Amino acid sequence: MSEVREMLVAAKTAARKFMNTSGEKRNEALFAIAEALEDQAEAILAANDLDIEAAKEKIGEVMIDRLRLTKERIAGIAKGVREVAALPDPLARNLQTIVRPNGLKIEKIAVPLGVVAIIYESRPNVTADAAALCIKSGNVCVLRGGSNAYRTSAKIVGIMKVALVKVGLDENLVNMPTDTSRQSATELMTAVGLVDVLIPRGGAGLIRSCVENAKVPCIETGTGICHLYIDESAELDTALNLVENAKTSRPSVCNAEEVCLVHRSIANAYLPALKARLVENRIADGKPPVELRLCERAQKIVDGVAATETDFDTEFLDYILAVKIVDSVQEAIEHIAAHSTGHSDGIVTRSEENARAFVAGVDSAAVYVNASTRFTDGGEFGKGCEIGISTQKMHARGPMGLEELTTYKYVVYGDGQIR
Amino acid sequence: MSEVREMLVAAKTAARKFMNTSGEKRNEALFAIAEALEDQAEAILAANDLDIEAAKEKIGEVMIDRLRLTKERIAGIAKGVREVAALPDPLARNLQTIVRPNGLKIEKIAVPLGVVAIIYESRPNVTADAAALCIKSGNVCVLRGGSNAYRTSAKIVGIMKVALVKVGLDENLVNMPTDTSRQSATELMTAVGLVDVLIPRGGAGLIRSCVENAKVPCIETGTGICHLYIDESAELDTALNLVENAKTSRPSVCNAEEVCLVHRSIANAYLPALKARLVENRIADGKPPVELRLCERAQKIVDGVAATETDFDTEFLDYILAVKIVDSVQEAIEHIAAHSTGHSDGIVTRSEENARAFVAGVDSAAVYVNASTRFTDGGEFGKGCEIGISTQKMHARGPMGLEELTTYKYVVYGDGQIR
Repeated sequence: MSEVREMLVAAKTAARKFMNTSGEKRNEALFAIAEALEDQAEAILAANDLDIEAAKEKIGEVMIDRLRLTKERIAGIAKGVREVAALPDPLARNLQTIVRPNGLKIEKIAVPLGVVAIIYESRPNVTADAAALCIKSGNVCVLRGGSNAYRTSAKIVGIMKVALVKVGLDENLVNMPTDTSRQSATELMTAVGLVDVLIPRGGAGLIRSCVENAKVPCIETGTGICHLYIDESAELDTALNLVENAKTSRPSVCNAEEVCLVHRSIANAYLPALKARLVENRIADGKPPVELRLCERAQKIVDGVAATETDFDTEFLDYILAVKIVDSVQEAIEHIAAHSTGHSDGIVTRSEENARAFVAGVDSAAVYVNASTRFTDGGEFGKGCEIGISTQKMHARGPMGLEELTTYKYVVYGDGQIR
Repeated sequence: MSEVREMLVAAKTAARKFMNTSGEKRNEALFAIAEALEDQAEAILAANDLDIEAAKEKIGEVMIDRLRLTKERIAGIAKGVREVAALPDPLARNLQTIVRPNGLKIEKIAVPLGVVAIIYESRPNVTADAAALCIKSGNVCVLRGGSNAYRTSAKIVGIMKVALVKVGLDENLVNMPTDTSRQSATELMTAVGLVDVLIPRGGAGLIRSCVENAKVPCIETGTGICHLYIDESAELDTALNLVENAKTSRPSVCNAEEVCLVHRSIANAYLPALKARLVENRIADGKPPVELRLCERAQKIVDGVAATETDFDTEFLDYILAVKIVDSVQEAIEHIAAHSTGHSDGIVTRSEENARAFVAGVDSAAVYVNASTRFTDGGEFGKGCEIGISTQKMHARGPMGLEELTTYKYVVYGDGQIR
């Protein structure tokens, strides 16, 4: 039996015992983990130094920064684990009680998913975050991170295992294969009956590979080609603030805006102001300017790069914004239907009627009226945390918190009923 | 573009319009469909005769019976469609309203899944049932049934399409490929971005093929190796009634019992009584007797066929019951963990403590205390209908009714909030 398969068999056994552990005990584990991570920060940093040394020739500075831990970042990770412990117990939920005419009492109760596999990139903080969310929700996790962070993540997982054992829990609640080749990822994707849910976290390529190859239930996450549509009735200042925020506050994340649709009757007023806001003012303020990629009609109003057709189907994750003029809210809705990834799309408007039409017509996980798409996030939605943002419709949609890491079972109480 | 792909593109477009259709309009469509099916019963029966004639040499009498329609069965189908119309609108649900400190108002509202593909066997009644459930829940369906029922199903779909157009809806809300080869099924399973959810309905082979090959989100349904555990404290009569009902009331369905676990301290009293009830009494009453497949210890108490190891991992769907003596409720739980498909498993007991242990320890979609496993059914659970019974943990578990055919979206209302 391969390492991954052996790990999964042990994980499944551990999951059955863990599913009935009290919320108190799960929190005890989280506090023990937070403390252990802080206590052993030096050892984690030593492993991290080795990872960074080895990765330096292979990856660029941005990726190195995502890989790097510091004492402060470790303290931040530990704080995050304690914050997860403080959240409400997602398993303490009786979702429904049904009493049938024949006297059967059916209770629908929240239970853990079981074994959750997470495939992610070389980000050591995800190792601790994902494990904390799984422990809090009664799930066993198998963490398959990127190879560049292997030493750091392995150290973190080792520390977590010892902390689990210290509070009387099974070390197999948190697992990480030593194999970081494609092979271990493929094994996780195809372990039918052993992996209850697979969650990929990372770039479009990783997610696509999981969706294409997974035989176990998989949740598609993260890719965001997000739109803001500036309606003819939009308040100009609001429309400028929202687009600047959605585009520039953190361009590398999935809820950042990639495309701005503008109603033709406001375009002459809006586009020059937008260009001033996103290009000239930002240069004057020493901030990175946004490259505007303009449709033909927009090019007649302001200067900018001519947009190609692929610009409206690209998750730039950069200071680039595709701009298109449309004739109506309906055309905006149609464009979004054809080009959005169904993550987050919004309208800026003062018309209740157009807001209603947009909300009804746009089939995305989050649909905004007069707010930045950047709010699509577990914390901002009041969930207190986030394991990922689902862009599929099955199981969960949008930010996934602790409740989305649970399923339910029906418990049926009778006194001899037959059918 | 292939037929299936063209169909899916049209289905996706139709789904976007259909998602905002009122509950009234969807019900109007269902009533029009019910009426049309009754009105054109003769044409359906003519198509059905051709199907049966062609299938006679290929399939056995049981399968022919599932394929056969009669005037009464068509009336039953139409009645079923009207009953679906009478159920509450699953889209008229605001699932949650969150008001954030920054003033954002987030509404989590129920919406249709979108395009639902259903792959099923040669059962014309499923064609109408599945379409009705999808229409009621605002979904567009692609129905890929077995080839032996093709003419009948195509006629039913044709009638439904005309009825949809008559009430002003799109004929593309209900779709069926003319290709009934493996190719069309494979295309549905791999149409990433066009099929929102795939639901296989049928035997273990069909479901396995979908789970293994699907790249689109798929719900594993139906396979049921269901257990009843007779605890040492069980009331004998109750235990006999429940096992007879769970095993013999309809052995061919997924919620029928396949395995009976018996506590050793009640086995001497229970097993002879069980044999009398399931074998001798049934023969005397002219009913089909149950073949008992006994573990070694059980064979020392009553006569019967010696069970092989595979008998405890087989969905017999027949008058066969595997019987095993266990030493404790814990051993019963362990056996179920190792051999159950996670569909429906129960305990017969008078001990609250053992009931609690069993309910906590068994991780199946439905866990029973003193009732027949046969109740795992949308109707019996008060859902009024059923598109299938999920045996996976993602999205839905157990009987799936109208609510399980929906997802949700978040609508976020702001007045210019930025992050």
